[in-house]
Amino acid sequence: MIRRLAVIGVGLIGGSLARALRAANAVEEVIGCGRAPANLARARELGVIDRFTQDPAAAAADADMVFIAVPLGAMRDIFATIAPRLAPEAVVTDGGSVKGSVVADAVSVVGRAPPWLVPGHPIAGTEHSGVEASFAELYRGRRVILTPLSETDNTALERVTQMWECCGAEVTTMSVAHHDEILAATSHLPHMLAFGLVDTLSRMHEHEDIFRYAAGGFRDFTRIASSNPVMWRDICLANREALSAMLARFSVEMTDLAESIRRADAERLLSIFERAKQARDQQVERARSA
Amino acid sequence: MIRRLAVIGVGLIGGSLARALRAANAVEEVIGCGRAPANLARARELGVIDRFTQDPAAAAADADMVFIAVPLGAMRDIFATIAPRLAPEAVVTDGGSVKGSVVADAVSVVGRAPPWLVPGHPIAGTEHSGVEASFAELYRGRRVILTPLSETDNTALERVTQMWECCGAEVTTMSVAHHDEILAATSHLPHMLAFGLVDTLSRMHEHEDIFRYAAGGFRDFTRIASSNPVMWRDICLANREALSAMLARFSVEMTDLAESIRRADAERLLSIFERAKQARDQQVERARSA
Ligand SMILES: NC(=O)c1ccc[n+]([C@@H]2O[C@H](COP(=O)([O-])OP(=O)(O)OC[C@H]3O[C@@H](n4cnc5c(N)ncnc54)[C@H](OP(=O)(O)O)[C@@H]3O)[C@@H](O)[C@H]2O)c1
Ligand SMILES: NC(=O)c1ccc[n+]([C@@H]2O[C@H](COP(=O)([O-])OP(=O)(O)OC[C@H]3O[C@@H](n4cnc5c(N)ncnc54)[C@H](OP(=O)(O)O)[C@@H]3O)[C@@H](O)[C@H]2O)c1
Repeated sequence: MIRRLAVIGVGLIGGSLARALRAANAVEEVIGCGRAPANLARARELGVIDRFTQDPAAAAADADMVFIAVPLGAMRDIFATIAPRLAPEAVVTDGGSVKGSVVADAVSVVGRAPPWLVPGHPIAGTEHSGVEASFAELYRGRRVILTPLSETDNTALERVTQMWECCGAEVTTMSVAHHDEILAATSHLPHMLAFGLVDTLSRMHEHEDIFRYAAGGFRDFTRIASSNPVMWRDICLANREALSAMLARFSVEMTDLAESIRRADAERLLSIFERAKQARDQQVERARSA
Repeated sequence: MIRRLAVIGVGLIGGSLARALRAANAVEEVIGCGRAPANLARARELGVIDRFTQDPAAAAADADMVFIAVPLGAMRDIFATIAPRLAPEAVVTDGGSVKGSVVADAVSVVGRAPPWLVPGHPIAGTEHSGVEASFAELYRGRRVILTPLSETDNTALERVTQMWECCGAEVTTMSVAHHDEILAATSHLPHMLAFGLVDTLSRMHEHEDIFRYAAGGFRDFTRIASSNPVMWRDICLANREALSAMLARFSVEMTDLAESIRRADAERLLSIFERAKQARDQQVERARSA
């Protein structure tokens, strides 16, 4: 049971955690923190938080659990503000989409990897932002990756694991670097493709006609291009290296594909498409039977 | 009212047309044609067709409407087989995803653009194939693009338009070249990205882990990579020029994006993502209010 939860950044991710813990009766009091009082007042109105402050240090003081769910570019300042004010038993975790940058931010502020920090990332989300988009079921049946360091306190790790399990999530741990590589492949690269595709089309002369004749498949494919631009700018900057490596890999693949089309290499095209279909179908099959 | 409809290629597209016309009571008899008797027997069992033959000429003879829905690479042989056997009042149309190649195939067989041919393309589909995947509602509320030539008979165009309207579709006409460019942008390029992405990931060392940690967004994004490889090979070959041009455009965009990430150009990244999000949100808004 969490006595006092501080949610710094009461948007989709932070708001959904608060809702889920409340629904599970796993938290006594929730303090929200953000920049815009209007958003926070709305969060209180929706019953997501009990009270709020615009000062992260005030929110964190006397909390036994602090959850940071702001865009990655805002993490460092939050650490700098809250670190000196944390209660001795306080545990801090976050929902940031990149883990290397969050750890680096904490280290740069505290001077070493803090034992109270459990870096985390729920593999769940939608293309919508803000507390209005949050819902208690977001994490049910989804994975949460925690990337504890050797310095991380075991009890802290245990408490964060339990918190996510209360939300119906399945918790796994892995290294920071592995997390950032895997996410570059499965999430960050696809978002770049969706943003890049829609931007390419929107800058074409015939873009009105193009969007008019787009079918349902196009809307699904580009859904993630409706995601929050600030959040994605920060993810790109935070996971620069792994994402650049993935973009380079993908570019090699696309050059090969474009070359095969140009020289009408029917066999090569068929083998690429068959391999991809097989991998995708297998993945769906596994997800179904899991 | 269609007296006898010949459907050559009783799969997702051909089967769904037959089902929709039957549901609308707009056809008296449906003859199916394909290569595998088992598929055709299944189509009859499902009530999609009344009888079948493996000979396209036999299917087309005495039909007043012929619908060709085979992969693009098979179109030319079908034209060669049926052209000499068509009834004088017969109209032929197709569902192929590229129109330039279909017209070229017909011209190469007949010696000129045949007045009885109305090239067409329903902007509807799923990632599944075969008659089992077909359903009567596939075309309801969707667009069908017809690309008549100056040689196309006006009555033929009118009859094909009515046929699609019976299925609940909205019919528009445009030039062959415009169709192939627009579809390269909204459908063929996105399919290349989805196939290319899944193939890139499946060839990575950690592919098991990668697919395991893929979230719902990834599954939506890659849904179209489960599409029929033969059909997509044929689309690539048939729309080589327009698709190559789109791939080149997209590659310029991605090089810019990758460069912006590499040099941590926060402003440029934000402006690309904002432009894309705005275009996508607008498109969804328009589709909703249409
Ligand atoms: N969306 C997803 O699919 C997803 C999935 C997994 C992880 N994540 C990660 O979760 C985090 C939050 O994403 P989200 O989707 O929940 O975004 P969101 O809905 O936009 O919420 C972010 C919240 O942070 C607040 N905020 C922004 N800048 C702040 C600052 N400098 N100081 C204090 N509060 C600030 C915002 O409120 P004010 O504007 O009022 O300050 C807002 O309530 C990000 O790190 C993201 O990478 C997102
Ligand atoms: N799927 C989509 O989303 C979509 C959307 C719009 C347009 N299209 C176009 O519609 C056409 C059909 O696609 P589909 O999705 O309906 O494919 P499908 O479900 O695989 O059906 C194709 C049918 O054609 C038959 N066939 C294949 N090769 C043939 C040949 N050489 N001679 C005679 N029959 C042959 C197949 O049966 P047998 O194997 O028994 O011969 C099968 O029943 C393609 O040109 C495609 O570009 C597809």
